[in-house]
Amino acid sequence: MPPFQGETSPEVRASDFDAAERAAVYRAIRSRRDVRSHFVSDEVEPEVLQRVLEAAHAAPSVGLSQPWRFIVVRERQTREAVHAAFTKANEEASRIYTDERAERYRNLRLQGILEAPVNICVLCDENPTQGHGLGRQTMPQTALYSTICAIQNLWLAARVEGMGVGWVSIIDPNALRKIFEVPAHLSIVAYLCVGYVREFASEPDLVTAGWEGRTALSDVVFNERYEGRERGE
Amino acid sequence: MPPFQGETSPEVRASDFDAAERAAVYRAIRSRRDVRSHFVSDEVEPEVLQRVLEAAHAAPSVGLSQPWRFIVVRERQTREAVHAAFTKANEEASRIYTDERAERYRNLRLQGILEAPVNICVLCDENPTQGHGLGRQTMPQTALYSTICAIQNLWLAARVEGMGVGWVSIIDPNALRKIFEVPAHLSIVAYLCVGYVREFASEPDLVTAGWEGRTALSDVVFNERYEGRERGE
Repeated sequence: MPPFQGETSPEVRASDFDAAERAAVYRAIRSRRDVRSHFVSDEVEPEVLQRVLEAAHAAPSVGLSQPWRFIVVRERQTREAVHAAFTKANEEASRIYTDERAERYRNLRLQGILEAPVNICVLCDENPTQGHGLGRQTMPQTALYSTICAIQNLWLAARVEGMGVGWVSIIDPNALRKIFEVPAHLSIVAYLCVGYVREFASEPDLVTAGWEGRTALSDVVFNERYEGRERGE
Repeated sequence: MPPFQGETSPEVRASDFDAAERAAVYRAIRSRRDVRSHFVSDEVEPEVLQRVLEAAHAAPSVGLSQPWRFIVVRERQTREAVHAAFTKANEEASRIYTDERAERYRNLRLQGILEAPVNICVLCDENPTQGHGLGRQTMPQTALYSTICAIQNLWLAARVEGMGVGWVSIIDPNALRKIFEVPAHLSIVAYLCVGYVREFASEPDLVTAGWEGRTALSDVVFNERYEGRERGE
């Protein structure tokens, strides 16, 4: 391929991460887990939580809108209310499974709301004034997407601090809205359980429990066009 | 706070990242940029692209559903078709701005579709069979959210490889669907420009261009309840 705009190749590249630093980042990415067990009760120090939230806040956001909001929850009583909302949603969710799959579902550990000393309720302003609407006319969901990027940053930062994060999605967002007094202009995006852990499992819990296996990268990567199977083929 | 489930505190914690490794991860997170300029024409080696895609594929996913799909685009002709779709969407998007803001908009560099040697179109199966529906009954959007987590992993991995990523959201998803022959059961989530760069800007381009400033972390973090302002207050 010819160089573009009159420049000559090879050009000077920014390469400011050495091999050890690159390896650290890849290890954080590979060893991150969705943690539901193994939380220890040790308090999360404010300065550590601050670092992890700063990492979230450094995420990309459409138009630099930074539409994420984080409610840090430590009070036991509040976490008990959230746990009750989880239990209700989980009873309903479990009904779609039958036979052996139902048995497996019952054995899954799905949340650590009470065991993790810190919970974080993540919100999003889906129509932020910050950013002046840049990039959201054709893809209005990008404010929401920015908020998820922030969550993934938080997850990786927590990992290197020795903290696990578990994302609880078996919960009615309206129950969370009521508990946390969230006004209508903010969306409820995620509920995270955060805390130090005894260990990070070498494999995802759902693999170990026989719920689902991992697919190969080659099954999800295509060249130039979508070449995958149609559903049902 | 008392220890839970009969355990004694302080407990043994997993702390397997040393200070230098932690610093590397935080630096990747802080110095990641949404890159639209500074791409160089150097080819991205297949093994480097593989590492970056492996990082994406290691993202968390609801029920281990791994619902992301990646189309790797290198052909110039295809990127030109995408660039034409961007130009059309951008002309429409620019019309909402007037006066000085319109002038600033015109001066923004919003994409690097032709300059970046690799583009990636990111898709999502929003109703995956993989994962057996776990975690998606109360929050069906979580398959989409998983795909965004994968994008953020990719972004950070690219950063440590010296590659920039630019997310182009000013584009009609249906134009991308047509170009890449994407079947109806997959959603068009993102279009990314990926390539080595001359430099990573110290600040986001939108800050430098005077489009938008960064907000303080304290403006987006709340304790125990949502305590922020209602819209318009």
